[in-house]
Amino acid sequence: MLKDIIENNQNYQPGLSIDCVIFGFHDNQLKVLLIKIPHSKSWSLPGGFIPIDQDIDTAAVTVLNGRTGVEGIFLRQFATFGKIKRNDQHFGKEVLEYLKIEEEKGKWLTQRFVTIGYYALVDFLKTIPKSANKEEVIEWIDHKEVPELILDHKEILDKALQTLRTELNLMPIGYNLLPEKFTIPELQKLYETILDKKLDRRNFLRKITNIGILTKLDEKKSNVAHKAPNLYSFDKDKYDEVLKNGLNQGW
Amino acid sequence: MLKDIIENNQNYQPGLSIDCVIFGFHDNQLKVLLIKIPHSKSWSLPGGFIPIDQDIDTAAVTVLNGRTGVEGIFLRQFATFGKIKRNDQHFGKEVLEYLKIEEEKGKWLTQRFVTIGYYALVDFLKTIPKSANKEEVIEWIDHKEVPELILDHKEILDKALQTLRTELNLMPIGYNLLPEKFTIPELQKLYETILDKKLDRRNFLRKITNIGILTKLDEKKSNVAHKAPNLYSFDKDKYDEVLKNGLNQGW
Repeated sequence: MLKDIIENNQNYQPGLSIDCVIFGFHDNQLKVLLIKIPHSKSWSLPGGFIPIDQDIDTAAVTVLNGRTGVEGIFLRQFATFGKIKRNDQHFGKEVLEYLKIEEEKGKWLTQRFVTIGYYALVDFLKTIPKSANKEEVIEWIDHKEVPELILDHKEILDKALQTLRTELNLMPIGYNLLPEKFTIPELQKLYETILDKKLDRRNFLRKITNIGILTKLDEKKSNVAHKAPNLYSFDKDKYDEVLKNGLNQGW
Repeated sequence: MLKDIIENNQNYQPGLSIDCVIFGFHDNQLKVLLIKIPHSKSWSLPGGFIPIDQDIDTAAVTVLNGRTGVEGIFLRQFATFGKIKRNDQHFGKEVLEYLKIEEEKGKWLTQRFVTIGYYALVDFLKTIPKSANKEEVIEWIDHKEVPELILDHKEILDKALQTLRTELNLMPIGYNLLPEKFTIPELQKLYETILDKKLDRRNFLRKITNIGILTKLDEKKSNVAHKAPNLYSFDKDKYDEVLKNGLNQGW
C-alpha cells in the first residue's frame, strides 16, 4: 500500500497526510486504535495520504473504514499539525530499504509533511481492527497506557482527547460508544472516563435528562445483584438534532 | 510578493495555503478585513503561503501582522478546507499574465491547494489595514454585507463565525475587541452582535459576572444623557486563566 503510494506519488497531494484518532469504549476504558510499526519499537496512529482527486474528508473516511471495517462512523476534523520539527524523526532509509523503493521515488516520503487530524468514535464491539499486512499489528490500547508513538502522534492524540472533552459541553455523546440499551450509571461512567473525574450522580441525572435525548425503556437491566437499574436508549432523531444545533446552554 | 513566491516556489510548502478571517468590532458591527483582488470583481480573505522552514502557526502570524500592523493578536486555527472543487475557480492565466510569470513556474499556483483557516480578533482602532501594493484595496466590511468572495472563502468565513459563536460558550471574549474601559451594556452588545440575537439583560449580567473576569472601576461613563453606567475593565490575569482552562460550566 505505502509502496504503491510512493511509486505513484503524483496521484497524491504532496506534503499532506491524514491521521485518525479512533476512540472506542469498553470495560470502562477509553481505548485508542494504534498500529505497531514493523521493525520499530514505536506505535503510530492510523493514517494515510490524500488522493489528488479526493476531498480531504473522503480520504479520512477511507482511512477509518479501512482500519475498522465499519461505516457511517462519527468522524470529525479537529486540528492540523504543521510544526517543521514534527518531521525530524520521519521514516528514514530503513523504511525505503524495507519497502524496496529507490531513493529518488522515496524523496516524496521524506519531504516535509503537514498532517490533518480527525477523531472518530466507534462501537468497540462492532469494530474489527484491520492490519495492512502480516507484519503490522493493530490493537486497541487504553488511552492511559499508550506506548511510545512516532513523530508528533502523542501530541495529536492529546489534542484529540482535549477536543473530545471540550465537545462534551457542546454536543451529546454516547451513540456509537455504548450498546443500544444502557443504564444511566453506564452513561455516567462513559462521561467520567472521558473527563477522567468523578461526577455527582444527581447533577449528572438532571443535566443529561434535560438534554431530552434519552428514551426510558420498559425494561430493567438483568444480571444485577442489587436493585436493577432502568434501561435507556437514545432517541436518534432528537440526538441528531442536538448534535446539529449544539447543547442549548449558551448565552 | 506573489511573484516572488511563485518564482521561488521551492521555498514554500506545495499545495498548502493559509487564510485568515480577521474580526474587528466597531459601531456595534462585527467587521471582517477583506481584500479586493485587482482586475476582478471579487474579494478575498487575507492569506498566504507557508515557508518550507516555518511552522504553520508562524506563517499565520506573519499574514496577520503583515495585514494589520498589530502584534500579539488572539489567533486560532479553526479548520482546514480541502474539497477538490474549491480550486475550480482558482486564479487563472490572467493573473499569471498580470504578474508576468512564465507558465511553467505558474503551475505551482494552479495545482490543487488545501488551505488552513485561522481566525483572529483584533482591536479595530489599533489596526492599520495594509495593502500589498497600490492596486490592492484592503477594507473592513460588516460581516452582514460581505461581497462576492473568491474560491470557498465565503464558506471559510461562515465556518469562522460559527466557531466564534460556539467558542463564546467555552471562553471569554472581548479583550482586543472592546476598548480598555467599557460598560456592561457595551459588552452585552458585543455578544449580541456576534450571536446575532437579543439577550436578556439580567441573565447576561449574572452570567458574565459569574465568570469572574471583570473589574468594576471607580468611574462612570461620561457623555451619557441619562443615568451614567459604570465602567469596567478585564482582569487580564483571570481572563487569561479562564481562556486557558475554559468556562467552568461543564459536567
